[in-house]
Amino acid sequence: MNARNCLEVLRKIKDVAFATVDEAGKPQVRIIDVMLVEGECLYFCTSRGKDFYQQLERDGNVAVTALTPEFQMVRLNGRARRLENQKEWIDRIFEENPSMNDVYPGESRYVLEPFAIDCGEVEFFDLGVTPISRESFPVGGGEVSEKGFVISDACIGCGKCLRGCPQQCIEEGTPFRIMQEHCLHCGRCFEECPVQAILRR
Amino acid sequence: MNARNCLEVLRKIKDVAFATVDEAGKPQVRIIDVMLVEGECLYFCTSRGKDFYQQLERDGNVAVTALTPEFQMVRLNGRARRLENQKEWIDRIFEENPSMNDVYPGESRYVLEPFAIDCGEVEFFDLGVTPISRESFPVGGGEVSEKGFVISDACIGCGKCLRGCPQQCIEEGTPFRIMQEHCLHCGRCFEECPVQAILRR
Ligand code: SF4
Ligand code: SF4
Ligand code: SF4
Ligand code: SF4
Repeated sequence: MNARNCLEVLRKIKDVAFATVDEAGKPQVRIIDVMLVEGECLYFCTSRGKDFYQQLERDGNVAVTALTPEFQMVRLNGRARRLENQKEWIDRIFEENPSMNDVYPGESRYVLEPFAIDCGEVEFFDLGVTPISRESFPVGGGEVSEKGFVISDACIGCGKCLRGCPQQCIEEGTPFRIMQEHCLHCGRCFEECPVQAILRR
Repeated sequence: MNARNCLEVLRKIKDVAFATVDEAGKPQVRIIDVMLVEGECLYFCTSRGKDFYQQLERDGNVAVTALTPEFQMVRLNGRARRLENQKEWIDRIFEENPSMNDVYPGESRYVLEPFAIDCGEVEFFDLGVTPISRESFPVGGGEVSEKGFVISDACIGCGKCLRGCPQQCIEEGTPFRIMQEHCLHCGRCFEECPVQAILRR
């Protein structure tokens, strides 16, 4: 996988969840079509009357997710920017997504504004394999944020974390080591280590 | 439809998007299983190590959405509260959702905490019919927030809004009237009314 593949999975699923934060600081989410993906850029649109549009214009932070039929979750976090050349983009989007004409016939399409997400990070989280598998990629100039847990040199090698890990993704060593690509971030090892050798990242 | 039916649609889809706000005020979203629905209450769980858990404990505001195969979008906005009797609830959830044992075998299930959403509002938005159709319901003691646009007495009856409405959901009268149950909230009428008779709610 890479960032581009992840965005292409979102385009293939097409109807994906877009989350924003409203003016009261509360989460908002709705299903929106992914209209195009080119390289490391995902395109969508929304109409100027919607709360979603206002939230994007005020803030621009957006989190996108969807699940494939094979239980692979893609999560994209980034910034959405409104595109210049509105009419050209909307015409192009309608050409590639003709069913949009059913909802916005004729000239009414121009109440829509095109947006692109081309900077952020994307995660591919495969729940359809054992152990689970996850991988993150920067999108555009974005950065990948490290999450989950890590075992420090304070580890005394007792093995309690390994025995209790639901995904069996800790390996012996000095110190013991979490295989991050298979970790659920559940926190069980963190809670159970007798010497607090496991740190939250 | 009613609130209960909407929650049952989410339970049937099962893998739905849950959005929260993180400590930096940014949106976060992931796919989570709806574990149970009883009356006007939706149950889910997450593990104590996850960012999602931290966000729920700090704030509790959550927005949930999913799309049916018939293009009906359900959106639930409410507050999630963590349940007492953690072990009982987790055992019950695992009984009703046995595939959870694949991810959290044995005792590791108790790193999960049960949550309920039983206060908020839910919207049913049907994109599979023409014109589109929407309806909102309070959940528990929640309140429905009015959105979209409304035509005021300043309307001069010119008919421009009606001619331009992509869903043809404005009817003549004094003043003209938006059929809210069929409105996209696109804002085209609002932008085009020559006398600014249309107000944002
Ligand atoms: S439980 Fe703690 S001390 Fe024991 S092996 Fe794991 S990290 Fe090391
Ligand atoms: S966070 Fe959970 S899945 Fe990850 S290593 Fe620790 S116990 Fe295993
Ligand atoms: S465009 Fe404005 S003035 Fe004309 S009918 Fe519609 S609401 Fe009334
Ligand atoms: S907001 Fe859009 S769909 Fe709703 S009445 Fe106005 S033009 Fe029609």
